[in-house]
Amino acid sequence: MEALKKKILTEGEAIGTEIVKVDGFLNHQLDVRFLEEIGAEFGKRFADRQVDKILTVEASGIAIACVSAPHFNYAPVVFAKKAAPSTMNEGFYEAEAKSFTKGTVSKLKVAKKYLNPGEKVLILDDFLASGEASVALAQIVEMAGAEVAGIGAVIEKGYQGGSDRLRAKGYQVESLAVIDKIDDGVITFR
Amino acid sequence: MEALKKKILTEGEAIGTEIVKVDGFLNHQLDVRFLEEIGAEFGKRFADRQVDKILTVEASGIAIACVSAPHFNYAPVVFAKKAAPSTMNEGFYEAEAKSFTKGTVSKLKVAKKYLNPGEKVLILDDFLASGEASVALAQIVEMAGAEVAGIGAVIEKGYQGGSDRLRAKGYQVESLAVIDKIDDGVITFR
Repeated sequence: MEALKKKILTEGEAIGTEIVKVDGFLNHQLDVRFLEEIGAEFGKRFADRQVDKILTVEASGIAIACVSAPHFNYAPVVFAKKAAPSTMNEGFYEAEAKSFTKGTVSKLKVAKKYLNPGEKVLILDDFLASGEASVALAQIVEMAGAEVAGIGAVIEKGYQGGSDRLRAKGYQVESLAVIDKIDDGVITFR
Repeated sequence: MEALKKKILTEGEAIGTEIVKVDGFLNHQLDVRFLEEIGAEFGKRFADRQVDKILTVEASGIAIACVSAPHFNYAPVVFAKKAAPSTMNEGFYEAEAKSFTKGTVSKLKVAKKYLNPGEKVLILDDFLASGEASVALAQIVEMAGAEVAGIGAVIEKGYQGGSDRLRAKGYQVESLAVIDKIDDGVITFR
């Protein structure tokens, strides 16, 4: 998605060789008008897929899922939680995912009642790096007896191999911008 | 907002005398089509206010802010973070807020660069209970030399006194549904 690449280059910040920071429109401040274009693009990429539900992870993923839902006939959005609030008193599915930027391991949790057997579930997230979060979400979908309709990421760090890992499991993976290399502040797209 | 009260009664779950759980459309699963109506309602309630930016807190607040932004000429949304990722390496404003449902104290953080002196900032959130989170967000707005344009909450727990506390500070507070009492599973609206 050319507009996204341009936005990353003009507003993003490359740190070292691993991190691209896009807090100006995706991870801290949200440019909702631009995110709506992202939602429309996911709508196109997965236009031939049946999508009964959209699954993401808190926090930034929520914005992505919300702007995408209208393009999937307002399929319900479910966001996995990283910590269970005291009101989460019913059964839930749980899978572990490591956060690259936070250096922590999160146990992603989804209440059982919000994923049903046979549902086609589209997984959306802001970043795809090693694929840990997507794998965890896909595990949760499969624990529920539901099916992964596809996996979409706004920005993929291609050099971390996540999409290869996910495609090897048979999933359709769509990343709207794939970064091949970050070197001394310079971002190279695939 | 009548449609919201009806939705709370049909899909919400009252627990004890304190908690109303609306995980089915607001806090875990998101009904984006319905949330769009909520965004439009905030647009009406604050139609006469200048809104340069919308400020909320992760996680559920992000959905509310995203559906509201189109009704404020796509004002940028900023969400306060409860934990600072390793990429948050610049100066930030910080204020403490206690979470009623999680029983924890969060230090809400907003990077300084995303709030500017003189901006009119609308604070939006899913719940308004004791008002702790809104007070913390208002403190952050004021630390930045910006101004609170108003405070909007989807659901107010009227019996916890938060809105009185905020109005006493001079803020316009708009709650779309005010719960006066929860008693043995029965919700009474104001």
